[in-house]
Amino acid sequence: MNNYFSVHDIDALTSWVEEAIDLKKNPLSHKELGKDKTIGLLFFNPSLRTRLSTQKAALNLGMNVMVMNFGGEGWSLEYGDGTIMDQGNSEHIKEAAQVVSQYCDIVAIRAFAKLENREEDYEEIVLKSFMEYASVPIINMESATGHPLQALTDAITITEYKPIHKPKIVLSWAPHPKALPQAVANSFAEMVQKMDAEFVITHPMGFELASQITNEVPIEYDQGKAFENADFVYVKNWSSYKDYGSSSQDENWRITKDKMDLTNNAKFMHCLPVRRNVVVDDAVIDSENSVVIEQANNRTYAAQLVMKKILEKS
Amino acid sequence: MNNYFSVHDIDALTSWVEEAIDLKKNPLSHKELGKDKTIGLLFFNPSLRTRLSTQKAALNLGMNVMVMNFGGEGWSLEYGDGTIMDQGNSEHIKEAAQVVSQYCDIVAIRAFAKLENREEDYEEIVLKSFMEYASVPIINMESATGHPLQALTDAITITEYKPIHKPKIVLSWAPHPKALPQAVANSFAEMVQKMDAEFVITHPMGFELASQITNEVPIEYDQGKAFENADFVYVKNWSSYKDYGSSSQDENWRITKDKMDLTNNAKFMHCLPVRRNVVVDDAVIDSENSVVIEQANNRTYAAQLVMKKILEKS
Amino acid sequence: MNNYFSVHDIDALTSWVEEAIDLKKNPLSHKELGKDKTIGLLFFNPSLRTRLSTQKAALNLGMNVMVMNFGGEGWSLEYGDGTIMDQGNSEHIKEAAQVVSQYCDIVAIRAFAKLENREEDYEEIVLKSFMEYASVPIINMESATGHPLQALTDAITITEYKPIHKPKIVLSWAPHPKALPQAVANSFAEMVQKMDAEFVITHPMGFELASQITNEVPIEYDQGKAFENADFVYVKNWSSYKDYGSSSQDENWRITKDKMDLTNNAKFMHCLPVRRNVVVDDAVIDSENSVVIEQANNRTYAAQLVMKKILEKS
Repeated sequence: MNNYFSVHDIDALTSWVEEAIDLKKNPLSHKELGKDKTIGLLFFNPSLRTRLSTQKAALNLGMNVMVMNFGGEGWSLEYGDGTIMDQGNSEHIKEAAQVVSQYCDIVAIRAFAKLENREEDYEEIVLKSFMEYASVPIINMESATGHPLQALTDAITITEYKPIHKPKIVLSWAPHPKALPQAVANSFAEMVQKMDAEFVITHPMGFELASQITNEVPIEYDQGKAFENADFVYVKNWSSYKDYGSSSQDENWRITKDKMDLTNNAKFMHCLPVRRNVVVDDAVIDSENSVVIEQANNRTYAAQLVMKKILEKS
Repeated sequence: MNNYFSVHDIDALTSWVEEAIDLKKNPLSHKELGKDKTIGLLFFNPSLRTRLSTQKAALNLGMNVMVMNFGGEGWSLEYGDGTIMDQGNSEHIKEAAQVVSQYCDIVAIRAFAKLENREEDYEEIVLKSFMEYASVPIINMESATGHPLQALTDAITITEYKPIHKPKIVLSWAPHPKALPQAVANSFAEMVQKMDAEFVITHPMGFELASQITNEVPIEYDQGKAFENADFVYVKNWSSYKDYGSSSQDENWRITKDKMDLTNNAKFMHCLPVRRNVVVDDAVIDSENSVVIEQANNRTYAAQLVMKKILEKS
Repeated sequence: MNNYFSVHDIDALTSWVEEAIDLKKNPLSHKELGKDKTIGLLFFNPSLRTRLSTQKAALNLGMNVMVMNFGGEGWSLEYGDGTIMDQGNSEHIKEAAQVVSQYCDIVAIRAFAKLENREEDYEEIVLKSFMEYASVPIINMESATGHPLQALTDAITITEYKPIHKPKIVLSWAPHPKALPQAVANSFAEMVQKMDAEFVITHPMGFELASQITNEVPIEYDQGKAFENADFVYVKNWSSYKDYGSSSQDENWRITKDKMDLTNNAKFMHCLPVRRNVVVDDAVIDSENSVVIEQANNRTYAAQLVMKKILEKS
């Protein structure tokens, strides 16, 4: 594998998930694989879970880790071809990607959507430019439109908790005080389409995800109806794709105990961080059916598997 | 040992200090103990000495270190039960502590007093919440009301320099341009009460530390009188506990050569950083009796001992 | 070697360059040398290339790396003797340098020119104070007036690409939207004077570097004439030394294809980051003669050589 940009870079989901679960049982089993290899983690946006779990994953493989946080002042890159760089951007991606590649064996990058211009965000210029110019593999630690390490984590978690029958998985929108990117929802939706599952997406009118991502997945505007017989309820806020970046705090969509009672004793999933009693009631996230902590734990093994795949190929 | 929250977590001070002095003689003697273990250092406030000495201590034990600095934007946690999280805080401590625990074998935390509300600060909500929800041991790298790694450092330093006779130790307030927390003074006062020493605290009227910390320790409002026959003068500014957070720059309390001449050739101690010629005159801190640099050196071995104790028990 | 403060700390340039090129061929050949040694990287200014390459160099030598970034709030040091520290600076260099020395085997420091007061910048108070008070070797990661790791990098790169004949090397000023320090140009000029080369500096009137640095090096105000027969064109913007800190964006000095055609098929060099189409045209930096990426690669081996020299001596 060259890059891990999206869930489409997973060539065999079932075996990847099995391999990740094996790593979880014995995290240090491949500690020689990353010896004397270095991963650079570049954060253009803040990170806690992704930072710590990815760093831990690299340590489990015996790798060195170099972390760069590009805060406000940091490092503003130019992506345009032929630009006269007399404004704020001090370095062109062409140099930046080549240079960083020389100090690292793998480069992982986080660069969120700006939610200002849909076309720009969906062009994924940061990640795609790094992939174009870097000489080493690139890992997506959440880009403008996708969060494939989270989605792989979610596939691991669903596999760990799945029932004997073909599961019903619901992706439900929930309210949030801030406008959030579609990245997590997009990658989750793409991932579930690769699984042997019944899949329904539920959200208010106007919050449809991009059709090139949801494809034929049924959309149900009645949240209660969507929840019926669900085995997994995956909850996330996202802002509108159609009216790009607009948000809603419609509290009718908050996940309550009553709504969870409509399901088939479903597991409650969320990528965290989560706003309690806005996105989900305490009674739900604190219940036995909540698997959000184990989900976060699996972040390590998703990242570790992706790095292992890259190291084995290089 | 589960957590190192306060000096009360030290079960046998004398043997701890001896063991730390042994580590100082041979810092790499337990390098296998921390192999494949990871400590996460979480800073909600800036740090230099604590950060470097704690990181170095972990490296001496062969541990991996993951550092997170939560600056202005960083990571604002919610601590209240049942809160509707529609304001600035994006994550609840319940998730935060459990999640971070999964990536680390030990978590060390720095979270200063805000000096706005005494009850809130003295509730120690940050450290106590992490201890409640985390599944791994927590180390206090200076909390709202205590700095027990510094206090253990100070016990080591006093032991290294102590005279044959039972020493007289003075904790003296000194002026400072900013209002500072009581944390260092509190933990020092608690620590000395565990030592075989005569102990006096001296400060201007109104700067009494919390009585639940000083207990029966004599308070002397005449600094010169307090200094008489002292073997150690430990200097620190702190803001008022009574008139919470109010400060004073009374330069009559600055530590001068003349005042040190009243002592029994006392060692001058300070946790650093120190404002020269405000807190203490150059003539004192640059004298042979100043042990502030060795004190800072001992930070490493205090931290290393605490981690060693935790690793041995886990 | 005690410190690496300037290129004058290189006692034998030719053998240093050869040794660095050997390290580049086998970067892990001295991985035992730095075992259980720790380097502290202190950044008073932002860094990307220097941070990553220096960290990588240390890892190649088997060292531990502790990185401190002192942003806006961070750590403001007092350098004056006898100052009454009742203003913004919270710690004196005397304590700071001694304390940090105790946690590290080597300390590397970045502290840029402020470009406000020439005398202050050229006194190099930050680096010189650290060298005075630290008890371990200090490495300059770009100070107010010099960038000797970059200059050693450049000597390596020139050696790799040099023709059979004695090369002609041109240091050319180029326009930039911001006022930049003279550090890179200064160290490059000092370095080339140690090499067996014809050396010319070209810049607009008023942008002369300090005469104590350029010595007898010819200055040519006609850029085209300077470029004739050049084998290497090293490009950099710097602000005025005479009218200290003043800058110019004179686009007549931009490096174009036409200008490069005047040379002897010269290699184009720049330390990066570079403003494309302001400093240099795309046609030049994207040409086969551009060696800027390899230059950046050599940063690792320059830093690694300096650390190796220090470790071997200590």
